[in-house]
Amino acid sequence: MTIKKTKGLIAAPFTGMDLNGKINVKNVSSYADHLKNIGLKGVFVAGTTGEGMLMTDTERLEVIEAWVSQKSEDFRVIAHAGSTSISSAKLLASESARLGAEAIAIMGPPFLAPKGVNELVEFSKDVALSAPELPFYYYHIPALSGVDFPMSEYLNEAKSKIPNLAGIKFTDNNFMEMSKCISMDNGKWDILHGYDELLLAGLSFGAVGAVGSTYNFMAPLYYGIIEDFTNGNIEKAREKQRKSIEVINILIKYKGALVSGKAIMGLIGIDCGPCRKPLQSLSSNEMKAFENELKDCGFFEMVNSY
Amino acid sequence: MTIKKTKGLIAAPFTGMDLNGKINVKNVSSYADHLKNIGLKGVFVAGTTGEGMLMTDTERLEVIEAWVSQKSEDFRVIAHAGSTSISSAKLLASESARLGAEAIAIMGPPFLAPKGVNELVEFSKDVALSAPELPFYYYHIPALSGVDFPMSEYLNEAKSKIPNLAGIKFTDNNFMEMSKCISMDNGKWDILHGYDELLLAGLSFGAVGAVGSTYNFMAPLYYGIIEDFTNGNIEKAREKQRKSIEVINILIKYKGALVSGKAIMGLIGIDCGPCRKPLQSLSSNEMKAFENELKDCGFFEMVNSY
Amino acid sequence: MTIKKTKGLIAAPFTGMDLNGKINVKNVSSYADHLKNIGLKGVFVAGTTGEGMLMTDTERLEVIEAWVSQKSEDFRVIAHAGSTSISSAKLLASESARLGAEAIAIMGPPFLAPKGVNELVEFSKDVALSAPELPFYYYHIPALSGVDFPMSEYLNEAKSKIPNLAGIKFTDNNFMEMSKCISMDNGKWDILHGYDELLLAGLSFGAVGAVGSTYNFMAPLYYGIIEDFTNGNIEKAREKQRKSIEVINILIKYKGALVSGKAIMGLIGIDCGPCRKPLQSLSSNEMKAFENELKDCGFFEMVNSY
Amino acid sequence: MTIKKTKGLIAAPFTGMDLNGKINVKNVSSYADHLKNIGLKGVFVAGTTGEGMLMTDTERLEVIEAWVSQKSEDFRVIAHAGSTSISSAKLLASESARLGAEAIAIMGPPFLAPKGVNELVEFSKDVALSAPELPFYYYHIPALSGVDFPMSEYLNEAKSKIPNLAGIKFTDNNFMEMSKCISMDNGKWDILHGYDELLLAGLSFGAVGAVGSTYNFMAPLYYGIIEDFTNGNIEKAREKQRKSIEVINILIKYKGALVSGKAIMGLIGIDCGPCRKPLQSLSSNEMKAFENELKDCGFFEMVNSY
Repeated sequence: MTIKKTKGLIAAPFTGMDLNGKINVKNVSSYADHLKNIGLKGVFVAGTTGEGMLMTDTERLEVIEAWVSQKSEDFRVIAHAGSTSISSAKLLASESARLGAEAIAIMGPPFLAPKGVNELVEFSKDVALSAPELPFYYYHIPALSGVDFPMSEYLNEAKSKIPNLAGIKFTDNNFMEMSKCISMDNGKWDILHGYDELLLAGLSFGAVGAVGSTYNFMAPLYYGIIEDFTNGNIEKAREKQRKSIEVINILIKYKGALVSGKAIMGLIGIDCGPCRKPLQSLSSNEMKAFENELKDCGFFEMVNSY
Repeated sequence: MTIKKTKGLIAAPFTGMDLNGKINVKNVSSYADHLKNIGLKGVFVAGTTGEGMLMTDTERLEVIEAWVSQKSEDFRVIAHAGSTSISSAKLLASESARLGAEAIAIMGPPFLAPKGVNELVEFSKDVALSAPELPFYYYHIPALSGVDFPMSEYLNEAKSKIPNLAGIKFTDNNFMEMSKCISMDNGKWDILHGYDELLLAGLSFGAVGAVGSTYNFMAPLYYGIIEDFTNGNIEKAREKQRKSIEVINILIKYKGALVSGKAIMGLIGIDCGPCRKPLQSLSSNEMKAFENELKDCGFFEMVNSY
Repeated sequence: MTIKKTKGLIAAPFTGMDLNGKINVKNVSSYADHLKNIGLKGVFVAGTTGEGMLMTDTERLEVIEAWVSQKSEDFRVIAHAGSTSISSAKLLASESARLGAEAIAIMGPPFLAPKGVNELVEFSKDVALSAPELPFYYYHIPALSGVDFPMSEYLNEAKSKIPNLAGIKFTDNNFMEMSKCISMDNGKWDILHGYDELLLAGLSFGAVGAVGSTYNFMAPLYYGIIEDFTNGNIEKAREKQRKSIEVINILIKYKGALVSGKAIMGLIGIDCGPCRKPLQSLSSNEMKAFENELKDCGFFEMVNSY
Repeated sequence: MTIKKTKGLIAAPFTGMDLNGKINVKNVSSYADHLKNIGLKGVFVAGTTGEGMLMTDTERLEVIEAWVSQKSEDFRVIAHAGSTSISSAKLLASESARLGAEAIAIMGPPFLAPKGVNELVEFSKDVALSAPELPFYYYHIPALSGVDFPMSEYLNEAKSKIPNLAGIKFTDNNFMEMSKCISMDNGKWDILHGYDELLLAGLSFGAVGAVGSTYNFMAPLYYGIIEDFTNGNIEKAREKQRKSIEVINILIKYKGALVSGKAIMGLIGIDCGPCRKPLQSLSSNEMKAFENELKDCGFFEMVNSY
């Protein structure tokens, strides 16, 4: 399988839910239009931001199917099939393939987590081979999954066992490992940078593609970082990254980027509803304060200019 | 809801799987007979030992249904409905109730885990109210779920919100908290001791019921501990606990109590097959060495005497 | 070296400090009288409670010297020599021996902590051999030192390398390991229970001696637990343990057992002054609230009855 | 106090020890000549690499004094005064000032660690004010000290309390926080990058000075990174960073950068002797293998070219 390198930004879309907690995929079409308009190269569906592991398998496939319908040559649809259950993960992978997803990804299972790279590769293999025609990505996010092995070892171990291995969504600030993954095997792997607030560090170490949640509404800011960086205008790139950090700080303050990031979607016209428990949505008072802080830092002017 | 206190031992049964990884519930009937024969008062189905979160929801319900058929007045069937997904957990709870389970339990969701007791109670409430006629247990196992709040605070917060709250499966060595849970509200809660190797400590702090995995094959040893303890023969109780620790040490050495405990079931005539990935079963060499160590410590003589 | 088993309770004394932060050993004599009066069998000096690692080596030796002067056949003086620096630890051990301490103890070094049991034993050995005539104890307190190895492995590794090894101050709730340490080598090691609030669990697993900070003011309550337990009055023992837990809960609420435990000493007539930074003493408002909670739970009546 | 920004690289020197474990400062003069020759702008003495907390206070001052004698206008001498004991830290700070150190630094105390930023600032303040004429740096190294607060909060809290606050040695890969520290208060703080293998990320976020252990022998490689980065030759900078990562990987494989880094000093003609326990030096077999790996990656050619 030839590995296509992702250039540019992929969004991790929020999953629409109604007030009764039901999945609502009605706005996926306009959501996808918005993402395409602001330059996204695809979506990473039903991962952390998409509350994938907070849904039933059936619900996840419903969401994946909706996004697959927006797929195009310029717009990738990567389906996250990770689960504590390998039987669920395999099912999600094979069904996503059948529905037309363009690639599959899984995070390491967060319960009874693998105790070694080997166990993790074995787990990955069975899922990857459930969709053998599709590129397979491992989703490395140790701060949330608790599964933390050196990704260079994972690639080394996995490459002979997983023919459709394509790369890693690398959501960690261990840039030493990221550097190794990017350069190993003549740079063949597609290593997708994961922490939006550290994009500049990823670029420094050679990342050319990234997946994130704030790209849902601030992709142009990040494309600016990439452009400035590429042109050697490092100080300008740094300034834009600082703006992104300023916004992300506000998100962290208001229950984190998942909860308040989802709330932002409503503020910019793509209502995605509340989050699922155990996540708790912003109260109306929190919402007001949140909006004010966003206003004060020039957030709305920025996104309206896109 | 009147809370029935569990007296005695409840097994966390292993889930039968065939070599293709399919669920196999054919031996549940003979398995249940064995458990009843050695004195078990019930089962805690599809929890950690039962690899519950390693199955699809459909598979879990198949297992729960099989065990429900063995239910009797003297043999409880508690269905574990915990999941990273609240929609799965609610479905598992309501379906388990429909199938005839006698009680519901959930652990805290191990991914995007609750950040406070309140979030955990809110999550619990929605699941508990999906089976409102059944006693609801919270399954506290912080070493595996990563969800770690003081259980006395959980009870205080939950009791007004969850009418069918019955108690806690307390799998932690924080006996200070266990003591508080046992004595609070005039001792009304059913607090089930969780670590087999520390049963003696649980008894000291007032536990009278326990759930565990080694009760599957050594329940009489533990009933001996309870009896000696109750009769004030503490040194005898301690000796028996030391024997249990000796066996558990061997289990830990051979990939842990889940993997090698499951292997033991085959050795005593109730074959449950291999474990699911990411767990890895014992190799045939490991299996031989494991059997030898069990033999050397007198394990088979002991279980054959039951 | 014949190992003497400690029977009964040893206090971890607070270190007197004046308002300028200077060490003040003037009240050690009356402090020791108090401890002897309420039944203590000795002191564990300059450990965690004594803020040992918060002092200079010179200050620590001043404190140790003061306590050594209170030593008697019935009153042990164990000097804690643990440090991040092995040269300091060796010096503290040899000087403590010269001053007349009766035994030496160290915790594992909390900075650049040993990565294996072997490194920890090597570190211990050099310190133990700096006071080769004195019994040597390893002070296992993983929650604070971050050094966490199975103590049965430590004993196995250390016994051939440290001729004066006497045992372990075991401040951990891993009672499985405690049980192994107590029973191994025909029960030769002196294993001192460490968590006051869990004394009952330690007794169940066979501990007969204990070191703690709340013994400074509530030793008779704990002797009651030991007596009830020994006589088979487990329910009475449990009730007393619950009382201890009730008090310890209040300590935890008010900046922890070190800070508020030290404050209690002033309330019962043995003023030990404030704590050292980074610890922060109770404000006067906190102090009032603290006293009230102690009063409400009957603390003063209890200690005045001794 | 006007804050001087450090431009360029500062080494964290290894501390010379003889085979009996005694401190040996005889080679400090030739060591300093070497560092000056390869472009270092100063030293950070008796920190982690210098095994500062593994020495007695007296030993530390001996080492600091030796390095102070090498101080010049172009060669800073920052004395690390961190300790678990505030009395030791204050003494080390005031004595270092008296001996002529040019700045003081402390890490957060790793035992009974501060529970909030406020406690950490209070601890820092007393040390900083023991050398009030000297710039004071906080040494942020959470992976080793266990003290982990957002450094932007530390600066905000400390700036009104510590008049001689100069900045932070930032040894963490939380570049979001580093970015905030660099830009806050109009960029007045001296924020020193800490992880050698991630220098490129630090530069991206605006760091202009760095402290590290591999600068002891590879400073020119890192100056190349800085130069390439500054000139917009990012790919060349990345290549050099990859070379540094290659070497650091070998260090990690051989007991870590402290142990094998110290061994390298002997290989390049500045013998610093063994490490202190609990650290363990390389065995002669390990040493051979280590040398071979260094040879194979071109290490000696590289350093001989300086």
